[in-house]
Amino acid sequence: MPDSEIDEFAIIARYFAPLATSESARGLVDDVALLAHSGALVLTTDAIVEGVHFLPEDKLEFVARKALRVNLSDLAAKGAAPVGYLLALFWPQGRPSAAVAEIAAGLAMDNREFGLELLGGDTVTTPGPLSLSITMLGRAGPSAPSRAGATPGDGVWVTGAIGDAALGLGALRGEAFSPADHAFLAARYHLPSPRLAAGKAIAGVASAAMDVSDGLIADAAKIAAASGVCVEIELDEVPLSPAAARWVAGRRDRLAALLRLATGGDDYEILFTSSDVAAVDATRIGRVVAGEGLKLTMQGQPTPLPAAGGYVHRFGR
Amino acid sequence: MPDSEIDEFAIIARYFAPLATSESARGLVDDVALLAHSGALVLTTDAIVEGVHFLPEDKLEFVARKALRVNLSDLAAKGAAPVGYLLALFWPQGRPSAAVAEIAAGLAMDNREFGLELLGGDTVTTPGPLSLSITMLGRAGPSAPSRAGATPGDGVWVTGAIGDAALGLGALRGEAFSPADHAFLAARYHLPSPRLAAGKAIAGVASAAMDVSDGLIADAAKIAAASGVCVEIELDEVPLSPAAARWVAGRRDRLAALLRLATGGDDYEILFTSSDVAAVDATRIGRVVAGEGLKLTMQGQPTPLPAAGGYVHRFGR
Repeated sequence: MPDSEIDEFAIIARYFAPLATSESARGLVDDVALLAHSGALVLTTDAIVEGVHFLPEDKLEFVARKALRVNLSDLAAKGAAPVGYLLALFWPQGRPSAAVAEIAAGLAMDNREFGLELLGGDTVTTPGPLSLSITMLGRAGPSAPSRAGATPGDGVWVTGAIGDAALGLGALRGEAFSPADHAFLAARYHLPSPRLAAGKAIAGVASAAMDVSDGLIADAAKIAAASGVCVEIELDEVPLSPAAARWVAGRRDRLAALLRLATGGDDYEILFTSSDVAAVDATRIGRVVAGEGLKLTMQGQPTPLPAAGGYVHRFGR
Repeated sequence: MPDSEIDEFAIIARYFAPLATSESARGLVDDVALLAHSGALVLTTDAIVEGVHFLPEDKLEFVARKALRVNLSDLAAKGAAPVGYLLALFWPQGRPSAAVAEIAAGLAMDNREFGLELLGGDTVTTPGPLSLSITMLGRAGPSAPSRAGATPGDGVWVTGAIGDAALGLGALRGEAFSPADHAFLAARYHLPSPRLAAGKAIAGVASAAMDVSDGLIADAAKIAAASGVCVEIELDEVPLSPAAARWVAGRRDRLAALLRLATGGDDYEILFTSSDVAAVDATRIGRVVAGEGLKLTMQGQPTPLPAAGGYVHRFGR
């Protein structure tokens, strides 16, 4: 293990200390960060593993940014403003440590884009795959919707477009798309867009909200369960990007195509319920009714739910 | 991968939700924790990997408690009081998920012992080794000593005893000890005792402080570097447990024996400098003088530092 001969502190000083810009981080030389804070703090941890949550051939810069963004997406869904994060980096034994620079470059890019800073963390080597765990801290806004407030009569809404990341993963695995659609969909897989601005507006009007990571259908079912209501989704109302719409148009089985998009996951859009969505940029995809569980329709006709595989989050993602 | 068929949410509900006892954690069903806090928050992240930081045959209950305690030790060295933590659990694919119960049991035990709670986290599977990353939050006390304040004239002090964990690891790998010493030393390796109470008192009097994780000599060198001073340590003053003292007495090369203990690491005692240590239970092991770096003596005679391997923290631990 020639690389285990590299000094962890040199790695931290060279690559990570420049990302720790505030006094809170104590230059990453002091075991702890000290953060002055008053009010409600929003905390979330998400971990990603090579071969499970990202592909071995993915650029490390994208991997680092995705690790940040899946956490930012959790904050967005609660209307919180990001503050900073701690990173646990599990670096594969024998991998040249110079490649840590690519991780650091990705973090630096998103630190600037989202006004973040690295507060602390730990760097260890592992005989296993490259893995990152990020704990993100945010300032709560005036309200932080949970999953449990959906009420019969509310509409069901989602930001952005659904299914691009699932198709992007397919494209990276060899499915055929036009070059432009391939590039767009792969970028949506590699680099989620946490809906922080929309999330602030949504937090003010939503009865329940969460980010879509496990698939629209799986995550809508979680809101239904937590709220003790039935969520109805009209598949034909689910917003699609032009690239995804083109893909659906080329399928013989439209229902199967829409279900693939609605169960694919990695969307990092905000799914929410509300009785009043003035001034929020989102698409209405259904409604909350009395009852329990999830109901799907296509063009108004009831449609059976996909097999459990489509909407249970496996231990392993 | 039969086990990847297990629902992550069932795992969380069964094993982890009972550990998330406050409203802050939102029952672990809401992607984020919401923590009301005012004042300085102390944050630390430490990760441990099977085969690197703990042995594959270690009981998972101990592994979980060690993961908590190495983080608690960071808080202790800053005089902070623990509040709660987020856990990223990387579970090996194919390992029966029922064993997660042992992790949860260990966490529950130390939650009670240290007044902690699980605030949130993430559970993923990995093709690699079992790994845990914990981000611990604490309330800062009136002062939080850094590594940078050591001043010529200060004494150098350490809590507890040094070298037990290194001998404990040796015992677990087959080195011969009496059954009682084997049991004591192995326990010191498996289950560090974070010095939270001592840490509070030390924070009030220390000019610099840190916990000893990479070995007494390596960590003393860090205080010297951060403070721009020279730290002198008298090896014969380093406090030893009766078991470690018996081991040293049995060695022909006393210097080599003491150096092994002072470079072994995993001690999780508090090393600090101070000009006034009234009412702190610690042992004086040296002094701070003008200059730089680390100097060792044995019975007053200057002693060469061990090779760099003994006091550089490898990227890989």
